[in-house]
Amino acid sequence: MGKIICAGLGPGDPDLMSVRAHKAIASVRQIAYFRKKGRPGNARSIVEGLLHADSVEHAMEYPVTTEVPFDSPEYVHLLATFYDDWAERLRSLSDESDVVVLCEGDPFFYGSFMHLFVRLQGQVEMEIIPGIPGMAGCWNVTNTPISWGDDVCTVLMGTLCEDDLVRHMQNADAIIIMKTGRNLPKVRRALEKVGRIDDAWLVERGTMPGERVARLAETDNADCPYFATVLVAGNGRRPTMGAE
Amino acid sequence: MGKIICAGLGPGDPDLMSVRAHKAIASVRQIAYFRKKGRPGNARSIVEGLLHADSVEHAMEYPVTTEVPFDSPEYVHLLATFYDDWAERLRSLSDESDVVVLCEGDPFFYGSFMHLFVRLQGQVEMEIIPGIPGMAGCWNVTNTPISWGDDVCTVLMGTLCEDDLVRHMQNADAIIIMKTGRNLPKVRRALEKVGRIDDAWLVERGTMPGERVARLAETDNADCPYFATVLVAGNGRRPTMGAE
Repeated sequence: MGKIICAGLGPGDPDLMSVRAHKAIASVRQIAYFRKKGRPGNARSIVEGLLHADSVEHAMEYPVTTEVPFDSPEYVHLLATFYDDWAERLRSLSDESDVVVLCEGDPFFYGSFMHLFVRLQGQVEMEIIPGIPGMAGCWNVTNTPISWGDDVCTVLMGTLCEDDLVRHMQNADAIIIMKTGRNLPKVRRALEKVGRIDDAWLVERGTMPGERVARLAETDNADCPYFATVLVAGNGRRPTMGAE
Repeated sequence: MGKIICAGLGPGDPDLMSVRAHKAIASVRQIAYFRKKGRPGNARSIVEGLLHADSVEHAMEYPVTTEVPFDSPEYVHLLATFYDDWAERLRSLSDESDVVVLCEGDPFFYGSFMHLFVRLQGQVEMEIIPGIPGMAGCWNVTNTPISWGDDVCTVLMGTLCEDDLVRHMQNADAIIIMKTGRNLPKVRRALEKVGRIDDAWLVERGTMPGERVARLAETDNADCPYFATVLVAGNGRRPTMGAE
């Protein structure tokens, strides 16, 4: 009887996963990971060269991505069925031996694994290995501390409406915006409204091959993948003022 | 000529530091870390048994902690001088060989190292190795996903005034409150006002020896160390609704 281990992979550079995740991935015989249909999958790419020679791979391919609106009943049904099916398959696979499920970033921080976690809780032994959230890899590559002293740090999704983005940005010192992509024009307008646009970074594939780090003000709206992250550092108590 | 490497240690369990931080700590000949005067230091405890046999240790002892109010001119001056002195000493030490500075959690996320970083920038080569933030270790040990879908996730310091805490909590889905300790009664009142007290966790020394995980509602105000973290998970789009 095995267990299901979700290994947080961190921001993307394999050296930035935890020692524990590294050991689990290198020793386990069954590996599962999410990916878009017909793609190698980013999580799988991160562990390239680390897997045990005898490991068996289970690619969990999303039934839809952007073909169906995410708030439509069809999307809801497709995704729920997808997670139901894979929860059952993983549970069954774990009867034979441990299964490591790969998860970019930290599994409990906006991670897809959570949808399997809630379905499997109480049915099978699970271990969750935390990881460095993707956003931490992103602020690291801007070479700028993100939050100081008493800063309020807020994480927002670019999918929020513009009014909500503005309201939350006004209340925050440090701001991180994920899921940008086609939402970038809206995110940019919101940052302009709150006067933070000139301090904003756009980071794409932070710590990974193809990494791009740019000032948001110097980028085009057309040129932004879904998984790019926008960051604005806080300005809390600073060392010239004496620090914390 | 060496460089200064700040190694993020993650939440405290040595197996949760990154592979890169682990390698740097095990191979370097000079190690520096912050600690309270007369104490072994939590960062140093985390790397116990990992250091190279020939490594030289530099304990950076805070001149004050809570003896002087943090907003007094005396505190400001003492801390600024402390960081000035150590920035200069580390720069000088790095002339001989690499120096690894230990930093709990992630160095750029409310980390003390940032005060050295801004002083040393442009004067010496630096490398910052990100780490799993302490809060991620804390939500991991509650075994509860912290944020889902479009959740707004906000990190607050317990040092904020009660009105500010309430206002920020009202605007957030997932809430993390650091620096609790003597601020706990205020944090508790704020969570009661926004109706989130029953969902709150209190985590002390998450992932470390002496770890304690409790429902906040079941703890005493008197019984809370400064570095305990309070967490309230978000309730964003959930799998029963179809997930993201």
